[in-house]
Amino acid sequence: MRSSAFDFASLFPASLPAPAIKWTGAARYNFVGGHNDPAVVPVDALRTAADAVLLREGRALANYTVNTGPQGYRPLREFVAEKLKRDAGISCTAEDIVMVSGSLQALDLVNAVFCVRGDTVIYEQESYQGSINRMTRMGVNVVGIPLDDGGMRMDVLAAALADLKSRGVRPKFIYTIPTVQNPTATIMSEARRLELLKLSEDYGVPVFEDDCYADLIWSGKRPPALYAMSKTGGVVHIGSFSKSVAPALRVGYIVAPWEILSRVLALKTDAGSGALEQMVLAEFCKVHFTTHVPALRTALRAKLATLMEALNEQFGTAAEFEDAPGGIFLWVRLPDQVDSMKLYQKALAAGVAINPGPEWSVNAVHSKSRIRICFASPSHEEIREGIALLAEVCRSEFGIPARSANVQKRV
Amino acid sequence: MRSSAFDFASLFPASLPAPAIKWTGAARYNFVGGHNDPAVVPVDALRTAADAVLLREGRALANYTVNTGPQGYRPLREFVAEKLKRDAGISCTAEDIVMVSGSLQALDLVNAVFCVRGDTVIYEQESYQGSINRMTRMGVNVVGIPLDDGGMRMDVLAAALADLKSRGVRPKFIYTIPTVQNPTATIMSEARRLELLKLSEDYGVPVFEDDCYADLIWSGKRPPALYAMSKTGGVVHIGSFSKSVAPALRVGYIVAPWEILSRVLALKTDAGSGALEQMVLAEFCKVHFTTHVPALRTALRAKLATLMEALNEQFGTAAEFEDAPGGIFLWVRLPDQVDSMKLYQKALAAGVAINPGPEWSVNAVHSKSRIRICFASPSHEEIREGIALLAEVCRSEFGIPARSANVQKRV
Repeated sequence: MRSSAFDFASLFPASLPAPAIKWTGAARYNFVGGHNDPAVVPVDALRTAADAVLLREGRALANYTVNTGPQGYRPLREFVAEKLKRDAGISCTAEDIVMVSGSLQALDLVNAVFCVRGDTVIYEQESYQGSINRMTRMGVNVVGIPLDDGGMRMDVLAAALADLKSRGVRPKFIYTIPTVQNPTATIMSEARRLELLKLSEDYGVPVFEDDCYADLIWSGKRPPALYAMSKTGGVVHIGSFSKSVAPALRVGYIVAPWEILSRVLALKTDAGSGALEQMVLAEFCKVHFTTHVPALRTALRAKLATLMEALNEQFGTAAEFEDAPGGIFLWVRLPDQVDSMKLYQKALAAGVAINPGPEWSVNAVHSKSRIRICFASPSHEEIREGIALLAEVCRSEFGIPARSANVQKRV
Repeated sequence: MRSSAFDFASLFPASLPAPAIKWTGAARYNFVGGHNDPAVVPVDALRTAADAVLLREGRALANYTVNTGPQGYRPLREFVAEKLKRDAGISCTAEDIVMVSGSLQALDLVNAVFCVRGDTVIYEQESYQGSINRMTRMGVNVVGIPLDDGGMRMDVLAAALADLKSRGVRPKFIYTIPTVQNPTATIMSEARRLELLKLSEDYGVPVFEDDCYADLIWSGKRPPALYAMSKTGGVVHIGSFSKSVAPALRVGYIVAPWEILSRVLALKTDAGSGALEQMVLAEFCKVHFTTHVPALRTALRAKLATLMEALNEQFGTAAEFEDAPGGIFLWVRLPDQVDSMKLYQKALAAGVAINPGPEWSVNAVHSKSRIRICFASPSHEEIREGIALLAEVCRSEFGIPARSANVQKRV
């Protein structure tokens, strides 16, 4: 790390975000970041896939898009189309898909197709931090709709749309994570999906469906995607292999009508997303996806069980949560006197990384005492130790939990 | 490809670029796009590298940055630091490097660190189309400095800086491709590099050095990078593996002082660039880079010879060019009556893709009769056939060349 005598700072635009802090490694107990379970990475199958696809098509790497065009590696698009039909009820072909560098690039591209500074969008009140931050940086207003056990509340959405309309505001889209919502892990029922689509059509506001956790439902049964249920085609659907295979492979996709994809492609000036990752994934998925994902779910389900057990043991009734039906995170409510932003800082100093509620919400008051705990990456032992340490920090800071592991502590 | 009954169009911002045209395959004779030679892709070595690195570190793919942090896969950063020291005279460590998804992402990130709408930057008058287009889309003014056989002209740069200063304009940077300039293939001498750095310091305008072709100099000898020569650290350096290994692997890098890297990282919200590509490259490069690159150069040099031979044969004195000292493209001047935008369209219709000069220049008049021909991807036979066909199109459209392959044609 070197610094410079040159005066760069006077050249930076005023709008530039604050500089990043130098990364110094992950926390000892890492409950953040959406990482996956290292033990379940299908290393041998990926090795076989890499070898086979490089042998067969390696020379095509000399071409920016391995000769399959700007929409991405065609065999992978074909797999995605097949998978979406089987799992999500979506009827589409490889032509309706653009492969992207993780669903984060999908967010950037779809956001840019619709939004400029001053626009308004509708979000679930609690939502993915990376999505919320993108809107903040773009200067787009986010209207948050509260969630209940069934996801985004349609009565509040209807009222918000009516209110915005009365003020002459047409939101650019309704962004939702309907299937294992991040961070609440709720799954929107099919009936509610119909209500959402009806409102979307009535108000002319498209739906932006982020489905990146949909493969990780313990039961293996998911409602059809909003994209599949829409009769007017007013849905943009995005997904990812980060959660189902491996996050360090930056491979996601956008499914949308050509009106949208042609705009996405005009904005996607990166000469294609990484081809080797797409090639290896395609080769792996066509053989192993349907067996790999259930194995992954089993492993994740077991880690969630350990996490809930550890929370019950360490926090007792102080930690409220619903058993998540899938995913890699648990949304936990602590008593009102716990300031999760402060807890997050103190815990991090003690070696435990958690997500404080306000960073995953557009309603800082509502989420003040809530935390998001990712359970896929740490081992069962690390989950137990980390939650014990978190309870200790929380107790010393807020007097909560008063009792843990059935032992009364002095506070 | 499906379309939608939903009215998306009324939601699009006015600033949205025009929709992309559906891709229908590459031209039969493809002289565009910066593709590489398929025959030289080191398939077997990449297979071995992929297998070894997946076996050893595959489980780390469960972590977004394979546990090496947001600056990118550490062993690859270490390789880049070593390579830059050996080849470009740059003294840096892995801490001074951020790996990115191809040098196109490097352009986006560095541009965003410095520029907003209305700003001014300095470019070589002829430059990479992808760089020029980025500035156009950002609404940044580009001042073009003419080139001669030694690259950007320092007398004109000095005058331009003085003129801008007199008008109260401090450009955000001087963007240059000093080592095998795109499209002119010139190499800026060490003496001229010193002049450029002096002007940069005198005017407080940093240098943005794009070095993506520097590995492809036939002689294997390159001048030190501007980054290496700067005494004040006022240079941002970017590079890529697209030209030296394979373009479909989207792996590039930024070398800069921490003042810049910390801003780049704050803007790089993609959860890391693809890790598998970085891992495979690192594993491959540490063993094979120094033998692979000379083999690639030999293959490219031979293709350039074929291209120049074909041009001489088909165009005679109508096609003027300098023997390029490296790279993957040739910048060709045709007689003044040739409108290269029109030639490009007619040639494409006939199955020959070339780059028209005005798309690679900020001076449409100067580049009106110039074309850029990429020679790495087509076979020797395709080069000969494609140039013959191009000559035929050019003759039928502009009466030039009047004679080709030593046969007088009716015009």
